[in-house]
Amino acid sequence: MHLPVAPGSSVENLARALIDIPSVSGDERAIASRVEAVLRDCAHLDVVRIGDSLVARTTLGRSERVIIAGHLDTVPIKGNVPSKMSADGTEIIGRGAVDMKSGVAVQLALAVELIAPTRDVTWVFYDNEEVEASRSGLGRIVRERPELLEGDFAILGEPTSAVIEGGCNGTLRLDVTIHGKAAHSARAWKGANAIQGAAPLLAALAAYESEDIEVDGLTFREGINAVGIHGGIAGNVIPDACTVSINYRFSPAWTVGEAKARVEGLVTGAYEGVPEPANGRTVTWEYTDEAASARPGLDAPLAIAFADAVAATGAPAPRAKLGWTDVARFGELGIPAVNFGPGDPERAHASGEGESCPVSDIHRCHTALRDWLMEPVD
Amino acid sequence: MHLPVAPGSSVENLARALIDIPSVSGDERAIASRVEAVLRDCAHLDVVRIGDSLVARTTLGRSERVIIAGHLDTVPIKGNVPSKMSADGTEIIGRGAVDMKSGVAVQLALAVELIAPTRDVTWVFYDNEEVEASRSGLGRIVRERPELLEGDFAILGEPTSAVIEGGCNGTLRLDVTIHGKAAHSARAWKGANAIQGAAPLLAALAAYESEDIEVDGLTFREGINAVGIHGGIAGNVIPDACTVSINYRFSPAWTVGEAKARVEGLVTGAYEGVPEPANGRTVTWEYTDEAASARPGLDAPLAIAFADAVAATGAPAPRAKLGWTDVARFGELGIPAVNFGPGDPERAHASGEGESCPVSDIHRCHTALRDWLMEPVD
Repeated sequence: MHLPVAPGSSVENLARALIDIPSVSGDERAIASRVEAVLRDCAHLDVVRIGDSLVARTTLGRSERVIIAGHLDTVPIKGNVPSKMSADGTEIIGRGAVDMKSGVAVQLALAVELIAPTRDVTWVFYDNEEVEASRSGLGRIVRERPELLEGDFAILGEPTSAVIEGGCNGTLRLDVTIHGKAAHSARAWKGANAIQGAAPLLAALAAYESEDIEVDGLTFREGINAVGIHGGIAGNVIPDACTVSINYRFSPAWTVGEAKARVEGLVTGAYEGVPEPANGRTVTWEYTDEAASARPGLDAPLAIAFADAVAATGAPAPRAKLGWTDVARFGELGIPAVNFGPGDPERAHASGEGESCPVSDIHRCHTALRDWLMEPVD
Repeated sequence: MHLPVAPGSSVENLARALIDIPSVSGDERAIASRVEAVLRDCAHLDVVRIGDSLVARTTLGRSERVIIAGHLDTVPIKGNVPSKMSADGTEIIGRGAVDMKSGVAVQLALAVELIAPTRDVTWVFYDNEEVEASRSGLGRIVRERPELLEGDFAILGEPTSAVIEGGCNGTLRLDVTIHGKAAHSARAWKGANAIQGAAPLLAALAAYESEDIEVDGLTFREGINAVGIHGGIAGNVIPDACTVSINYRFSPAWTVGEAKARVEGLVTGAYEGVPEPANGRTVTWEYTDEAASARPGLDAPLAIAFADAVAATGAPAPRAKLGWTDVARFGELGIPAVNFGPGDPERAHASGEGESCPVSDIHRCHTALRDWLMEPVD
């Protein structure tokens, strides 16, 4: 059976057909092959398959190239495949309706339809987004074939309710350990209490005020927070170690290296001027996670034109993406990127009929991207 | 086989014979029966058996009554039964040599020997000391037959290297929980960080200076310490709860109720004047353990005479007991109590030949107690 991509067939029907091909992370072979067949039927596209990911490019020699990407996998199915249409015909329902087969349907329909876009387009369909980052098909292309991802601007079709969400904050996680000296709690003065040694760090974190940082016309709010703490050996022992896990959500104004310097400054600053206890105290840290931020690039003419096309659909103004998404992979390549796709992200991953996407979102995304990619370019 | 308690037999031989009867906690029937047989042979003692505990009293109508107690059980045997004598004949070696069959031997020898002590004596041999407090044979006597434990002063034969260690600090444990509000860490301002909310409490604990409190002529050092902390849900969530476990070692100057008021004052005081964060913060606590302190009573004439008898053996001056021991059970009955027994407590519970007790300690304890219990009383 062919996917319904013939001219005149509706994008929502294509979205439903994609939902009906189960593609839980790690099991994308079937859907990738069906998408590949559609793309290879298009004489205007250069198609490369890498594992279960596909890259399909127009090569019209345009002055600008846009990358439009979406993932083929979903979280596990929870009684919501095959798809349904809501009784009133306004929503499609099923696993991936939001995250993100409606977005993939918009992209695949346009890949077929736009034989001669005014901007060259690199369409990317990739596997393994909903699992650990090391398995990501997009990450694999970045590592193995970065030249396939060259471009001036990237759009990731993750659900945003058809509003532009620009760039994304980066994220760092570090475990800060305060080391003290164990002793019996009836003779506490022979030890150095590591839990109590965390007080200056927690006080500094509590006093930290999250900064609003403007990047490319959007405001990114940062945050440095304790997200975990543990320490203690037994009810009668002065603890010799206490570990505070810190998460720093940093704006696209900073590289990972700059962000590390900032959070390390907070940690060491917390202990400046704090007298060291009699039996010593040392503070060490170790990073457990790091992910780059991505600039939105919404100040470039190319992006301004895109924002205008989206505004023409009646969508609210672009806003900053505060959570981390795969746009950061483009950030690492120096390509500004935004999130733009149908569906309310709060409904992603819901069970049963909970994951549903307004058909109107699908149409607005399709219209905005088509109009932008077909508008005359100077 | 009878225990070697005939006149003229050495106390160290009795200690070895007691070690050679395995009596790991819960398995004290055999040793209790052997001790019972010895006590029942003494016409000068009134003997009561309660489970595997024994109470044997002189009833001479003396003006003062002293309770002298020791436990019959040991921690599990680790290749150290039967007992041995060290090559140079100065130490006895085996499970319980320190904790506390040497002490039991001193007590049992004196129970047989002292037909007419100048102070009435209540000898107590009890089971299940080395396990959870609820199983304690001494606790059972306190609950079921408190009249058997009436007296003016108590001596517990726990190892102290034959030095008087008076009374004991009490201990309280409480879990203080700071409650906040969960949120995604990319939108931290929508939550209230409970881990960071622990900062004032940890700072107050760090600033607390342990007090030296004099009770009945001994100095008890107190301590309030964080002994555990945990909090956090996931690496991307603002934590809604953080629990700090606190241990308060309080001097015999305070009842349990007074000690609770003191530690609660520290907890609530930590948050006085600290502004409540936007999304709220509450602090609650729950006690997880409480054990009374015990006064040493070393200022009473009876106790002064005992301290003199111990000093005559060349022992250092009495000191305060900072850890918690069963003397607190006497404290609960309003009876001042001290620890006094042969063996270095640091060698208690050691494996193989590690648990060993100097014969000289056994002799010093025997001499001091006998001289004191036989001295003329006004």
